[in-house]
Amino acid sequence: MFTANGYYGLLKSNYLFSDVAKKTAAYSQAHPEAQLIRMGIGDVTQPLVPAVIKALHAAVDDMSRMETFHGYGPDYGYDWLRSAIVSRDYASRGIHLDLDEVILSDGAKCDVGNIQELFSADCVIGVMDPVYPVYVDTNVMSGRAGRFSESKGGYEKIVYLPATSENDFVPSLPSERVDVLYLCYPNNPTGMTLTAAQLKKFVDYALENNVLIIYDSAYEAYITEADKPHSIYEIEGAKKCAIECRSLSKTAGFTGTRCAYTVVPKELTAVDSFGKTVSLHDMWARRAATKFNGVSYITQRGAEAVFTDEGHAQIQDVIAYYMENAHIIRTSLQKAGYTVYGGINAPYIWLKVPGGDSWAFFDELLDRYHVIGTPGAGFGASGEGYFRMTAFATRENTLLAMERITSGR
Amino acid sequence: MFTANGYYGLLKSNYLFSDVAKKTAAYSQAHPEAQLIRMGIGDVTQPLVPAVIKALHAAVDDMSRMETFHGYGPDYGYDWLRSAIVSRDYASRGIHLDLDEVILSDGAKCDVGNIQELFSADCVIGVMDPVYPVYVDTNVMSGRAGRFSESKGGYEKIVYLPATSENDFVPSLPSERVDVLYLCYPNNPTGMTLTAAQLKKFVDYALENNVLIIYDSAYEAYITEADKPHSIYEIEGAKKCAIECRSLSKTAGFTGTRCAYTVVPKELTAVDSFGKTVSLHDMWARRAATKFNGVSYITQRGAEAVFTDEGHAQIQDVIAYYMENAHIIRTSLQKAGYTVYGGINAPYIWLKVPGGDSWAFFDELLDRYHVIGTPGAGFGASGEGYFRMTAFATRENTLLAMERITSGR
Repeated sequence: MFTANGYYGLLKSNYLFSDVAKKTAAYSQAHPEAQLIRMGIGDVTQPLVPAVIKALHAAVDDMSRMETFHGYGPDYGYDWLRSAIVSRDYASRGIHLDLDEVILSDGAKCDVGNIQELFSADCVIGVMDPVYPVYVDTNVMSGRAGRFSESKGGYEKIVYLPATSENDFVPSLPSERVDVLYLCYPNNPTGMTLTAAQLKKFVDYALENNVLIIYDSAYEAYITEADKPHSIYEIEGAKKCAIECRSLSKTAGFTGTRCAYTVVPKELTAVDSFGKTVSLHDMWARRAATKFNGVSYITQRGAEAVFTDEGHAQIQDVIAYYMENAHIIRTSLQKAGYTVYGGINAPYIWLKVPGGDSWAFFDELLDRYHVIGTPGAGFGASGEGYFRMTAFATRENTLLAMERITSGR
Repeated sequence: MFTANGYYGLLKSNYLFSDVAKKTAAYSQAHPEAQLIRMGIGDVTQPLVPAVIKALHAAVDDMSRMETFHGYGPDYGYDWLRSAIVSRDYASRGIHLDLDEVILSDGAKCDVGNIQELFSADCVIGVMDPVYPVYVDTNVMSGRAGRFSESKGGYEKIVYLPATSENDFVPSLPSERVDVLYLCYPNNPTGMTLTAAQLKKFVDYALENNVLIIYDSAYEAYITEADKPHSIYEIEGAKKCAIECRSLSKTAGFTGTRCAYTVVPKELTAVDSFGKTVSLHDMWARRAATKFNGVSYITQRGAEAVFTDEGHAQIQDVIAYYMENAHIIRTSLQKAGYTVYGGINAPYIWLKVPGGDSWAFFDELLDRYHVIGTPGAGFGASGEGYFRMTAFATRENTLLAMERITSGR
């Protein structure tokens, strides 16, 4: 008799962004005249840049002719794209990677969700709190999280590392056993990032304690301060303890086009649950070869254009546009008397909620200003008391939302 | 201390198609003058049809303008594509599906690989033998298969159901416990399919024994005999016991474009490992929402064109082209004295190897005729003695390969 995986049933039934969407839809129906401004979900609004559009059209043309048609591509991505990534994203920062240490996928959400398949069932998972829900939920679904504890405000077996204004949003090292540590910098949702010295503390801790770090740097392109690390591999020794996930979603507006990649260094070895020493790179490559069939050829050609000089310059303009939005949000909210964080090296602004109830603040913002953000509590217990606003709206909407909030109407 | 998932280490180190590729590369290097004809891997060669190309270009243009730009799409796929699938693939055959019973993905390999996440750890897996390696390998990686046994010619805990010429390539019902049964019809690699009466036997067995069927019908578009079922849901009761996976890879030449879908009926419930009754549809939807971020907008617009009258007519021509190749291969091999199966309702021809050693036959075909096929042994113990050739080469190459084989030079 078939039995289903019971761990799915341990997931909290609601997903943060679904809740936000439902509340918004209900409000919209009750108040059809309200002009809502969405600064909640982290989706981009600017079109793909001209160099990418041109490359996508050319790739579509390739698919129309037998001589240039592309069927199954390499499971790990075409070498021309992998080498563009290695050179522009890594060599440029003094990091040497072999081409085949980069494995492409159709999304960083997929990669950070699937990466836990490489962990043994009894690995103890550590996450920052607040946290992007996918790190936790995928470990719940595979049985590593245990049950949700209302008193703890989290899953029994997960180790939560608070990142709040008290520690400048950089958690202390775990005081209890952790086998895998998910770090996200620049951080979603807090919009804060860390210094090389702060990142080095995590790498040293991981090396000393045989901890695997999953480093999500999906927002690295938004770093504006020159001294902040973009990759964990800027830190010595990180290739022996860290996997890095990146995405073109925010970097180049690919949220609807789908291209990301994960770096698993060949130096990264581990002992497996049968006591054998294994290469995590080989495991991840095997996963891709077995459960994945490569990223769309057309998408990969579009992605390649992002790494050309022309495409790179164009996406920098788009990023600057969003970061100007971030600046407007930061300064406007400060002017309105709010305490704000982030928005300098990331497209997210994290504000301290007056009164401390983030869902109440969500309702208030929606009702009074018709502005939609994301309640910090949705990202974890330590997110309560905060609220996330994104810089991805249009300039016009960003200015309008801020005008409503600062003028109090 | 981090420990890796040891089950990956139980995978046989080589993957069939990698072995074929390596042997081919080695031969090619040793004989640079040889004009090799590839009839091994199941990849298409004809370009995308004009209606799809047009839709892809239009979608790229959409992505170039803010008003028509698409960011994150629905995790499950756009409704316009899901409704096109429901109507052309199912309603046309008298099957009613709700739109949200269809969940899109970037590939059937991904779906048939990921679907096992819904099974509890102790489910007993049954597969046809020979078999598409992904069904087995993904269960090895998650610990359901046990170790590979040389004496058994398969993994300890997997139940293999031989499909050979003795049973007309339709296995007998399992005589031992099976909780999940993977069926693939039209079949890869044998190229054979079954009748509605034969399929009904499996559905009835599944209903009686609470077995979940994973029905892979990636090749249904190649069925030419009117009385053969295209979908398992043509059989009464199947919605209570079966999940169906389909793909545009072979149907519309999307191997490099990436679009597939899986149907999980809402009627399909199961008891989970904690004794709770759960909906497999809700679980699969939750998986998509948590570990996937939707198929590329551009790809979905291209896929939509496949389901228009214009696109549908165009892909029928391409399918007819491949099936004419299949006919040529069948008749040529018969003329050359081989016993052949398949090639009538599927783009695969399965031939009986004289002498019975399929890897020796691979070497012989490569060496004598410079033709590459796939040894049946690579698909499982019961595949030994057979050899797969695909109809996806160009007409010219198909004719040339057959001329070499029939003329014995």
